[in-house]
Amino acid sequence: MTGPARPVQIAVIGAGDCSGEEERAAGEIGRTLAENGAILISGGMSGVMEASCRGAASSGGIAVGILPGTGDGNPYLSVRIRTGMSHARNYLVVESADAVIAVGGGYGTLSEIAFALKAGKPVYGYRTWDIPGVCACPTPQDACFKALSAAHR
Amino acid sequence: MTGPARPVQIAVIGAGDCSGEEERAAGEIGRTLAENGAILISGGMSGVMEASCRGAASSGGIAVGILPGTGDGNPYLSVRIRTGMSHARNYLVVESADAVIAVGGGYGTLSEIAFALKAGKPVYGYRTWDIPGVCACPTPQDACFKALSAAHR
Amino acid sequence: MTGPARPVQIAVIGAGDCSGEEERAAGEIGRTLAENGAILISGGMSGVMEASCRGAASSGGIAVGILPGTGDGNPYLSVRIRTGMSHARNYLVVESADAVIAVGGGYGTLSEIAFALKAGKPVYGYRTWDIPGVCACPTPQDACFKALSAAHR
Amino acid sequence: MTGPARPVQIAVIGAGDCSGEEERAAGEIGRTLAENGAILISGGMSGVMEASCRGAASSGGIAVGILPGTGDGNPYLSVRIRTGMSHARNYLVVESADAVIAVGGGYGTLSEIAFALKAGKPVYGYRTWDIPGVCACPTPQDACFKALSAAHR
Repeated sequence: MTGPARPVQIAVIGAGDCSGEEERAAGEIGRTLAENGAILISGGMSGVMEASCRGAASSGGIAVGILPGTGDGNPYLSVRIRTGMSHARNYLVVESADAVIAVGGGYGTLSEIAFALKAGKPVYGYRTWDIPGVCACPTPQDACFKALSAAHR
Repeated sequence: MTGPARPVQIAVIGAGDCSGEEERAAGEIGRTLAENGAILISGGMSGVMEASCRGAASSGGIAVGILPGTGDGNPYLSVRIRTGMSHARNYLVVESADAVIAVGGGYGTLSEIAFALKAGKPVYGYRTWDIPGVCACPTPQDACFKALSAAHR
Repeated sequence: MTGPARPVQIAVIGAGDCSGEEERAAGEIGRTLAENGAILISGGMSGVMEASCRGAASSGGIAVGILPGTGDGNPYLSVRIRTGMSHARNYLVVESADAVIAVGGGYGTLSEIAFALKAGKPVYGYRTWDIPGVCACPTPQDACFKALSAAHR
Repeated sequence: MTGPARPVQIAVIGAGDCSGEEERAAGEIGRTLAENGAILISGGMSGVMEASCRGAASSGGIAVGILPGTGDGNPYLSVRIRTGMSHARNYLVVESADAVIAVGGGYGTLSEIAFALKAGKPVYGYRTWDIPGVCACPTPQDACFKALSAAHR
């Protein structure tokens, strides 16, 4: 197929309850991804998820929330996928992404990192779990550019 | 919250293998929904799903595919949700919608109609299953306007 | 493989809120299936599900509940599968069965009948939805014997 | 409710492709769990999963496989749950368990450990991932007794 390629989809994963620094980093990542034409995929809830969606929305990007329940998720979502399937939706978040960026995170984030690596998806981390296969990045910008580059490959 | 309300999400459901008339109707529905600012949700595959996405894309709308597998689905999707969960994803399609439009359809469509009615979502049908609770519509346009009206309520 | 074949698995589906006659029928079906060595699969909750499990338990059979949440379901379950995935678990109930028996039922049951027919599983009904492909049976016993026969094929 | 308590359900998780030592350990764990009246929950496939099921079957126990696809899984299963939902079924495996035992394992096992810890389930490990919250056990027997003890609490 010639013509414009489909936009890349990048997942930003992290805890619903996060530090101010993680929130700031997630916001910067969401904004940078949107400025570069990527669709943001997340779990659609609070914390890192909400901050990244707010960042994407501030740059006019599309933020997709794959929600654990059947509610509305955070207010910055462009598209709401209501799964009603609780944490099992973590698998859908990473499977829908061409590349994954992890910011901080608890056990839920760890499950997503594991699913991503299992599926052979590239995972870039900023202050996250130290798991073999995760590429640790010194800055949010570095994680974005590496993820964008990998997703376009 | 003041300011613009979130866009409504409307699911178009129907068989992956459909008649020419169903395809034409689904295309018209996708186009009309997009022209009215609705986000189109579908199962992302062929037949009625593809025709509705093509219609939405032709009017610059957002077409979301909640895919049964982990592939790319039809070429008219703006957003691809890769569930890898086979037909169980039918539940997610209707749960994500504010209103549902059914065009023709086989047993998969019947499962989605059932889930929608179970969840109390309004279901408008064009040449589809005759199930109590489904509002049969004489034309694709009629189904669109009723679904848009219900979704905005 | 020579040696004993694996036991058949038969799903009994129906509403969580049912009539006394449906409850009586479901109990008789659960008992008959257990007496014939079948494993009973159900959604694990109340009504038709609970009555069939109680029937199976009264004959020393195995009753498996594929639960929508993460709780314990009805007290007659031998095995509890906690899915946390709400009604999407309906797909798992019928996919796990070699044959399906429907007793009465509302929209949830209709979604299961649709999934079963989509998957090509035999469906036997007692006072349930009149859908092409469902074999209507005059008595609970008749439904059991037809389902057992189909499952052993 | 007085009378006999429900049997505990213990998940044994590990890779589909494992070492001989892991297989031996998993077999011993399956046998020990069955001898102590526990129901064995696993992903139902090969490697650690199959070895634990074979161990349980050799002692007359119930081995439940929560399968990623819609096939039959390993030949030692007493009950087959066909999810068709790929790795997202990992969530169901641990959510269905009162306690979890991990033997070796790759990224799939890591996702299950993460889900278990997220849900607050006790996790006992034998030669597995070193994640905070996992109780490392020196022998398979030690893992079994700790898991049985935790599950009965």
